[in-house]
Amino acid sequence: MMKDVFITNSLTRKKEKFEPINPPLVGLYVCGPTVYSEPHLGHARPYITFDILSRYFTHLGYKLRYVRNITDVGHLEDEDAGEGEDRITKKARLEKLEPMEVAKMYTDSFHDKMDQLNVGRPHIEPRASGHIIEQILMIEKILEHGFAYEVNGSVYFDVVKYNESNNYGELSGRVLDELMSGVGSRELEGQDEKKNSVDFALWKKAAPVHIMRWPSPWSEGFPGWHLECSAMSQKYLGETFDIHGGGMDLLFPHHECEIAQSVGAYNKKPVKYWMHNNMITINGQKMGRSLGNFITLDEFFSGSHKLLEQAYGAMTIRFFILQAHYRSTVDFSNSALKAAEKGYKKLMNSYDVLQNLKTSDESTVSIQPIIDDCYKAMSDDLNSAMVLAKLFEAVTIVNSINDGKEKINEAEYELLKQLYQTFVFDVLGLKEVESQSNDDVSSLMQLIIELRAIAKDNKDYATSDKIRDELNKMSYQIKDGKDGTSWSKA
Amino acid sequence: MMKDVFITNSLTRKKEKFEPINPPLVGLYVCGPTVYSEPHLGHARPYITFDILSRYFTHLGYKLRYVRNITDVGHLEDEDAGEGEDRITKKARLEKLEPMEVAKMYTDSFHDKMDQLNVGRPHIEPRASGHIIEQILMIEKILEHGFAYEVNGSVYFDVVKYNESNNYGELSGRVLDELMSGVGSRELEGQDEKKNSVDFALWKKAAPVHIMRWPSPWSEGFPGWHLECSAMSQKYLGETFDIHGGGMDLLFPHHECEIAQSVGAYNKKPVKYWMHNNMITINGQKMGRSLGNFITLDEFFSGSHKLLEQAYGAMTIRFFILQAHYRSTVDFSNSALKAAEKGYKKLMNSYDVLQNLKTSDESTVSIQPIIDDCYKAMSDDLNSAMVLAKLFEAVTIVNSINDGKEKINEAEYELLKQLYQTFVFDVLGLKEVESQSNDDVSSLMQLIIELRAIAKDNKDYATSDKIRDELNKMSYQIKDGKDGTSWSKA
Repeated sequence: MMKDVFITNSLTRKKEKFEPINPPLVGLYVCGPTVYSEPHLGHARPYITFDILSRYFTHLGYKLRYVRNITDVGHLEDEDAGEGEDRITKKARLEKLEPMEVAKMYTDSFHDKMDQLNVGRPHIEPRASGHIIEQILMIEKILEHGFAYEVNGSVYFDVVKYNESNNYGELSGRVLDELMSGVGSRELEGQDEKKNSVDFALWKKAAPVHIMRWPSPWSEGFPGWHLECSAMSQKYLGETFDIHGGGMDLLFPHHECEIAQSVGAYNKKPVKYWMHNNMITINGQKMGRSLGNFITLDEFFSGSHKLLEQAYGAMTIRFFILQAHYRSTVDFSNSALKAAEKGYKKLMNSYDVLQNLKTSDESTVSIQPIIDDCYKAMSDDLNSAMVLAKLFEAVTIVNSINDGKEKINEAEYELLKQLYQTFVFDVLGLKEVESQSNDDVSSLMQLIIELRAIAKDNKDYATSDKIRDELNKMSYQIKDGKDGTSWSKA
Repeated sequence: MMKDVFITNSLTRKKEKFEPINPPLVGLYVCGPTVYSEPHLGHARPYITFDILSRYFTHLGYKLRYVRNITDVGHLEDEDAGEGEDRITKKARLEKLEPMEVAKMYTDSFHDKMDQLNVGRPHIEPRASGHIIEQILMIEKILEHGFAYEVNGSVYFDVVKYNESNNYGELSGRVLDELMSGVGSRELEGQDEKKNSVDFALWKKAAPVHIMRWPSPWSEGFPGWHLECSAMSQKYLGETFDIHGGGMDLLFPHHECEIAQSVGAYNKKPVKYWMHNNMITINGQKMGRSLGNFITLDEFFSGSHKLLEQAYGAMTIRFFILQAHYRSTVDFSNSALKAAEKGYKKLMNSYDVLQNLKTSDESTVSIQPIIDDCYKAMSDDLNSAMVLAKLFEAVTIVNSINDGKEKINEAEYELLKQLYQTFVFDVLGLKEVESQSNDDVSSLMQLIIELRAIAKDNKDYATSDKIRDELNKMSYQIKDGKDGTSWSKA
């Protein structure tokens, strides 16, 4: 079942029919997290977005190889913090930890949060620190082709030279001349070494205080941040692959630089389709540490941030993100999240109701059109918002049948169950949360013990014996002691 | 609370008082899994053993850095399979997968199984493939010091040369002359390149078919298996660190070679204390794929192997392993596992009973001696078997108090709870499993709905209303329909 899928390609700024390079194989690369701090809300959106892409393509029969990297080498920061800062190293020294110990802690936390959000695991999860050789080899190729130069042990990509024969700006639409006049006056670390202000580092000589460092033909140092994705996507997916995804904030300069690096090294465009999810705001504001609205996923799940009125489960967060198209901005607020929680529960409750529907000989409802609409929506640039809208039509149908207002026959009932299985669970990746905890078992047992006491008081031994026998069948023992009745499970 | 701990040092074959090199810091390195197949029973023992070491040392106040590697580069196999075989690559080609995709799949599975066994995560988990540069640098040092030689792009460690000024065999007690006469007649790959049959590869030139390869000063190839642990332990713990652990099967040649490599590169003994857990047999036999008794952890947890009469939970496996001293062999059999399951449940049930004990003004029991004995046992070479024996004395006490045969006052009660918390949960790392599943909630709800119907039939509306109201308090709704009563949770 290979349906035509259309996705918006940032490179052409158009919705295009997806045609894999080597069908049915599909290579997908998504920029992964920098593991120097707790995963936050900003991580949820891209990984959920490309998770539904991965789920849908797999459902359609494509054989996907999904590569998502771990940035564990501190990278050159953007101009806010000053180029040359190694963020991981900075944190590690504050905590007096080995950088890889910090990276491991936050990598584990990232994995745990992604599991909670039911984000499927990528097939390959390469670490930047584990691919220094590959990055050095790529720099050597770029140098060979004349698109880079060495200064004082550091190597920079020569954007101006590259732009003579290529278009630096083809992805982002930026114009090189404007870029160069814009940065001119700033005094950034490494700027004095660069030929042009827009040039970017491929290799940086490490300052003496820098912990993370490797030998290279140019100096003991570390790779520039843009390089790892180029080197690792090439290694695991080839010089040209199908889809590269990431947040809109990475489009420039990161992805623009990736294209330049790959063309510089292999003289090939690395990616056929570039896909970018839009950003998240919190109460209308950009999320940022300095703004006090930086909320980690842990804080969402526990409700422990001052801006949160309650805890929000991972499935509520997922549902909320899926309610918007991935190319729209999304604003997080307590009211919006509460609405999402309600919607999620309504959908899941209808699934429970669905299990117990009675079928009739005839059907007053028709499910196939909803299924068709869901495929159409997903194939139209992953319109998860529309899929959810269609699923809520199914919710209405389920409730109407349950209330006896509509009838369903066996064939339609099968389609209805298939609709939920395919779109709620397989494609949107929602799941039922174990809301029935051990606390519930305890509370229910207390009620049953009380009911047994009432039956005994009424000398209704048939009932009290029934309770004991039924509980025994479930391996529950009840024991009457001088301080009342207790229970245990074998 | 820093108690004297004694551990058996394989290097001296003696129980020695543990004295860290830089107290309170302790560096611990344990050989991790080769991620080319499903984690099996053989993985459970070393990681549980060094988990209780890690837990106990942390409990005592040591500041531990626990490094456990992931072997994701296929390594030279022992003589059974023929030297030069790259096991990961072999598997990858069979499955037509990229080797790192296979490695990722089994690494994830390993992590999941360790989580289920409640094995704490190491602080750093370096991958062999991510430390090729470090391994190349180490080879260069060994070459510089004259303990290695290059032949046809491969580099071998010169054991005979090393043994002239050092003792190859100091850890394993093997004698070089005997080793050399023993291997002589076999024809192994690479043997013709070696000066001596006992020499081992530091770097192997990759055959054309070999997928995993990196450039080096000698050839495109891959590091010898013994090297990764030497390079990575040095990087994260220093040239000499406190404890190196692993299974007895790794003592020779792997750990013997590690010592030689470190001395060869840094002229320092790498490890102060070598610790080795003993092996596992299954029904008295060595575990092996060819013997048909190779059981994965998944198969234990699901009971799906033909040798298993039932499924055994992760905590049953953990309890079973802890019942033996780590230096004893352990034989897995259905009867032994069932006994372990019973013991584990008995211990956990007593913990539930403990919560509800009534205290008296006086106490007929004394808990401090048991606590002291538990510390003594753990400090005596991690005698977990003895700790469990002592904990079962506490179980007897708990049950006697519950039955009114003994009395306990507040102070002793606090000690009793502390004993469980410290030794059952913190040190031995056992945990209560959620045995009360959603199925239980469903069954209990069915019983309650029946009891409500009975009450209604008896016109006992006080009881039927009570049921409805109590359930509402727990957010359970019951709804009477024409086809009977259903329930849902808000």
